Parts: sequence; C-alpha cells; structure tokens
Amino acid sequence: MMTLMATVGTNAQKSESGVAAHIIAMEKAALDKWGNGNPDGFLDISAPDVVYFDPFVEKRLDGIDQLRALYNSIRGQVHIDRYELLNPKVQAGATMAVLTFNFNGYQKEVVHKWNCTEVYRLEKDGSWKIIQTHWSLVLPKLQ
Amino acid sequence: MMTLMATVGTNAQKSESGVAAHIIAMEKAALDKWGNGNPDGFLDISAPDVVYFDPFVEKRLDGIDQLRALYNSIRGQVHIDRYELLNPKVQAGATMAVLTFNFNGYQKEVVHKWNCTEVYRLEKDGSWKIIQTHWSLVLPKLQ
Repeated sequence: MMTLMATVGTNAQKSESGVAAHIIAMEKAALDKWGNGNPDGFLDISAPDVVYFDPFVEKRLDGIDQLRALYNSIRGQVHIDRYELLNPKVQAGATMAVLTFNFNGYQKEVVHKWNCTEVYRLEKDGSWKIIQTHWSLVLPKLQ
Repeated sequence: MMTLMATVGTNAQKSESGVAAHIIAMEKAALDKWGNGNPDGFLDISAPDVVYFDPFVEKRLDGIDQLRALYNSIRGQVHIDRYELLNPKVQAGATMAVLTFNFNGYQKEVVHKWNCTEVYRLEKDGSWKIIQTHWSLVLPKLQ
C-alpha cells in the first residue's frame, strides 16, 4: 500500500503528459475488469461525490452509493470480448483532468460505439479519483 | 470590456459557491441564445482546445474550429420555446470546474430530454471557458 501511494504521489507531480498517461492507464485497468463483469475497478477509483450519466438512467446519479447500486445491479452481466479506446485526450489542470475518448466494445462481431467523458480529481492522499462519468451512445436512434 | 474583466476576475476568486453561480449563469446565458438559433453564446465561451460530443457526431470534435463548423451548419435552425436546466451541480477546483445537469427542452408540447456535462477552465485572463462539452439523450432507443 505504501508503495502504491508513493507511486501515485510521484505520478501526481509529473508533467501533463505524465498525468495523461497515468489517467489513461487507470481507465484501461478499470475497463479491463468492466469487460469481465466486474465493476469494482471503477468503484475503487470513483470519489464519494462522483456524478454519473449513461443512456439508461433517467437522471444524473449523485454519489458513490447511487453508482454502486447501479453497478451492483449488473455485476457479472457485462461481457466484452475486446474493446478499442480511441484517440484518448487528457486536458489536465493542477488538480483536475478531463479524459475524453470514443470507445468501441465488441461482443463477437457486434460493435457498440460510445462517447465517454471522465473527470478525474487529484485527492489529498495523492491519488486521482473519478468525480464525473458520462457515457453516451454514438448516433443512437432518435426518440 | 475592462468592467467585464474585473467582474470575471472577482468571480474567479470567489468561493466554490460563487464559482458555481457564475458558471451556471454563463451556461444559461449561452442556452438562451442557443434556443433562439444563435450558437455564438457557446462559441464565445469555448476555449481554443474545446472538445465536444453530441449524439449526432460520429466521433469527438477537437478544437474550436471543428465546433464552429458544426454550429454554423445549424445556425438559425434551433428553436426552443422554453427549457428547464434541472438540478445543476458544479464540482469546482482551483482552475477547473465541472457543471452537470439534466435538461428538458420544449418545442410546443414536445419535450426533449438531455444529459449534459460541461467542463470549464479558468483562463489566464481571469475568464472561465468551456474546454469540454458532452450532450447526450436520456433513454434513447437502442442501436
């Protein structure tokens, strides 16, 4: 644990490109678990005050308890054979960073295309945590 | 212009609640113009490196030139009779702030429901500018 903290602390003081690489690596690690039905990768790196949008919730979720309830309701049900995290971009300030990307998730030969915005915040313990997640579908059918 | 700069500078140094009120007011002012077919409210408060998602673009737009091209293509075509900006929340750091809200746009008796995430950044001139916009539909039909 001390080793991890030290590593994260070092990353937090890196250049903007270092922060970007660190945050993209965090996102990929969480996505790898997500694609195997395990939402804990995201829950572990989300802050208590995280807010969340996806196409299937009618209004914004506020706070880790609401997000945990959603994720637990689908635990074990998500299976992605492989994914592409396309053209990730990180816009970093001293204590916040925005990660945006397009995402292709493959289930056999079917591809699901998404937009994603994650906002990460540098916490007092030196770790970066997600405070805002927004997933949406690319070119959904209109209402 | 000097008066405006001074006002914005003062706001930038306000408490988190002051920053929140300032940013929500900026968003509403831009939305008021948007609902009358005028995208300049958003273009004027977007940074050169702004990135953008909405349901009708296949991949993230990068930079103000791409956003301006999109907005100019629909200039004069958007007409919203009235809107509700629901439950706005601002998560603010020293130089960046995330505004999230649900949005109901009314055209006569038809309501269009949206999720929105805006990330604002405090620029060196003391103004807040949008660096990331993400609009998505609430409960769209699935692909």
